[in-house]
Amino acid sequence: MRSDTVFTQGLRQGVGGSPFWTVEAVRQVRYHVVSSTGLFAPGNPALMTGCPDAPMLPGDRRLVVIDENVDKLYGAEMRAYFSAHEIDATVVPLRADEAVKQWDAVSLVVDAMNDFGIDRRREPVLAVGGGVLTDVVGFAASLYRRGTPYIRIPTTLIGLVDAGVGVKTGVNYERGKNRLGTYAPATATFLDRSFLRSLPLRHISNGLAEILKMALIRSEDLFDLLESAGAEARADRMQGTTEELARAADGIITESIHLMLEELQPNLWESALERCVDYGHTFSPTLEMHALPALLHGEAVGIDMALTTAMATLRGDVSEAQAERIYGVMRTLGLPLWNEVLEVPALLGDALRDSVRHRDGQQRLPLPVGIGQHRFVNDVTETELRNATMLLRGYANGHAASAGVLVPARLSA
Amino acid sequence: MRSDTVFTQGLRQGVGGSPFWTVEAVRQVRYHVVSSTGLFAPGNPALMTGCPDAPMLPGDRRLVVIDENVDKLYGAEMRAYFSAHEIDATVVPLRADEAVKQWDAVSLVVDAMNDFGIDRRREPVLAVGGGVLTDVVGFAASLYRRGTPYIRIPTTLIGLVDAGVGVKTGVNYERGKNRLGTYAPATATFLDRSFLRSLPLRHISNGLAEILKMALIRSEDLFDLLESAGAEARADRMQGTTEELARAADGIITESIHLMLEELQPNLWESALERCVDYGHTFSPTLEMHALPALLHGEAVGIDMALTTAMATLRGDVSEAQAERIYGVMRTLGLPLWNEVLEVPALLGDALRDSVRHRDGQQRLPLPVGIGQHRFVNDVTETELRNATMLLRGYANGHAASAGVLVPARLSA
Repeated sequence: MRSDTVFTQGLRQGVGGSPFWTVEAVRQVRYHVVSSTGLFAPGNPALMTGCPDAPMLPGDRRLVVIDENVDKLYGAEMRAYFSAHEIDATVVPLRADEAVKQWDAVSLVVDAMNDFGIDRRREPVLAVGGGVLTDVVGFAASLYRRGTPYIRIPTTLIGLVDAGVGVKTGVNYERGKNRLGTYAPATATFLDRSFLRSLPLRHISNGLAEILKMALIRSEDLFDLLESAGAEARADRMQGTTEELARAADGIITESIHLMLEELQPNLWESALERCVDYGHTFSPTLEMHALPALLHGEAVGIDMALTTAMATLRGDVSEAQAERIYGVMRTLGLPLWNEVLEVPALLGDALRDSVRHRDGQQRLPLPVGIGQHRFVNDVTETELRNATMLLRGYANGHAASAGVLVPARLSA
Repeated sequence: MRSDTVFTQGLRQGVGGSPFWTVEAVRQVRYHVVSSTGLFAPGNPALMTGCPDAPMLPGDRRLVVIDENVDKLYGAEMRAYFSAHEIDATVVPLRADEAVKQWDAVSLVVDAMNDFGIDRRREPVLAVGGGVLTDVVGFAASLYRRGTPYIRIPTTLIGLVDAGVGVKTGVNYERGKNRLGTYAPATATFLDRSFLRSLPLRHISNGLAEILKMALIRSEDLFDLLESAGAEARADRMQGTTEELARAADGIITESIHLMLEELQPNLWESALERCVDYGHTFSPTLEMHALPALLHGEAVGIDMALTTAMATLRGDVSEAQAERIYGVMRTLGLPLWNEVLEVPALLGDALRDSVRHRDGQQRLPLPVGIGQHRFVNDVTETELRNATMLLRGYANGHAASAGVLVPARLSA
């Protein structure tokens, strides 16, 4: 899908015999991702006029669905902002974590939209919170009257760099991770890293997992930056309290988003099923849902990356030295390499089979090649999964060499 | 949206100041509507190879969700067809009527898809039943893994000419008619009017309401056909038992579908909110849900058309003679002109306000002009609604002249 592609449109009717019609049409989608620090500072015009497709005017009404924890921290500041700009805001706090990311949460948002009497096109719903919150609100909005616009204000790192910049919405269904959802971009997403100042470090790590993912498959430069400055930026909660830390935080976040959008834009509806941004997302959906609530999403992605790095090492695509660097960076970013869920019998095989169903009958598994590149494989076996798990257990315990796994000779030599 | 429109695509990043990205992309959609009589006759290849985008091959698996009533009538024939063509079909009967057109029904379909272990792209779900069934299954499929293909086999007249040929899916939410849904066309819809042989006449009328709608706003020819042959075609359940009845049934169904598709194709996602196919659908969603289960969808649409014909008569856009013809055709097609729900205090006003929310703040109410044309109005008042209700009550009682309503002088003269 490139800009010079010709799209057929129209209605054709077959002639002769029984009627036969073909309907072809083209839908254009546009959305914006806007950075601004201090979104709720009264003098900051970003939320009012920062996005050309989603202006707010004094006197407008808005329905605001906010994570109940975020409401406690930033709700007063937010309400003051809306008051100052004469926005008639109806604020609805919502519990939003992976365990309640189910249809019932969508239903609560629909109730709020009904009570608000929302207009179909002119009153976008504001979603303020982490990835779970924005996924749930985006899903509800995309279904309400078959599509009501919404705006995202992510308040977590994973929301800023991942859930907040793509077009996917959804909820889990029983143990099926994001089993139900839509492709429905927010008209605008406003990125403000100052929200991260109140985020637990574990949730900073949660977002860094998705950033590391982009680095491993697309950018050695970003990996180098994470290796040299990731730990300090994490400890600083990406607040940029020194000039150097600010450069690191901005570099890490902006580069990660840009790489992500470069991958998403030509394949917004996943018509191509070989998606390198699926790296870390082959086994993790099943692991995460199985371990719920023990693992955050990014932690499950981290474990998937640790396992698939071991697979790439066994295949000779990643050297042992590179694997050590990768695992080292994961440790300094506060990401687990291992979880006992990896040893649940048959779980990895089940996870792979579910991904195969998701990828239309093939594995299409992205694996790292060195650091910053990738390839897709379709020949993973249960034996390979077992061997990689053994190798990873060794690395996680800090003694890969004694793990008893055969590393290819040309690498172990 | 025409075929010579240029669509921008790409990723742009703002320069200077805070990062700002704009993502633009184009999604192409194509679907087919295929007519064939006797779909489950063993020798009919239509379901196997009739649609180029949805072939079935011997050995394929299919999940088939079928209305439980249709299953009783046609289930055995259908299973024999699949057996004969070596399709491994898992058949799931589902209750499907307006009263259960809620999320719970979607959830049952999702359970069936989970149990089946459906592939994301290669195993379209078959939906066999009326408009409610195909709307519910289409909704579930469109959400499952953010979009699993589905195929419709409508078994009612309203399914054939309306629900089955468009791109809308959805369910009611509490009293909100189709409050939740998606735009997600079936890859293919197979139209087979022989199913109608077992349909109660009331349900034939239900479908004729949507056909009459297309006639009133778009085609005097179709109206003439309904006037001359509609009653007989209805009594024949569109089976074409004589050559003349076959010509009438085919003409009525094919012309109605073609007009419908002509209106839908350039506006598939309702970016334009002035939709003449919304005729009969301004007041009816609220009336239908309020009267549930007393009124079928087409009956509610019929009452809406009767009311808005009265409005157009009061405005001088439809002559009294034309109104008499319209009401006469409605009677011969077995459609009610009146229901006591029209006199529920404030209900019509509420209905209009809800449609205004759906149409982004304006009434955009399509009204007939003569027979076969229409215009949009935005100035309907409560008084006009009251007067039109009075006039309609007179017509429905067969004594419009004595209803005490002022018909414009130039028309009543």
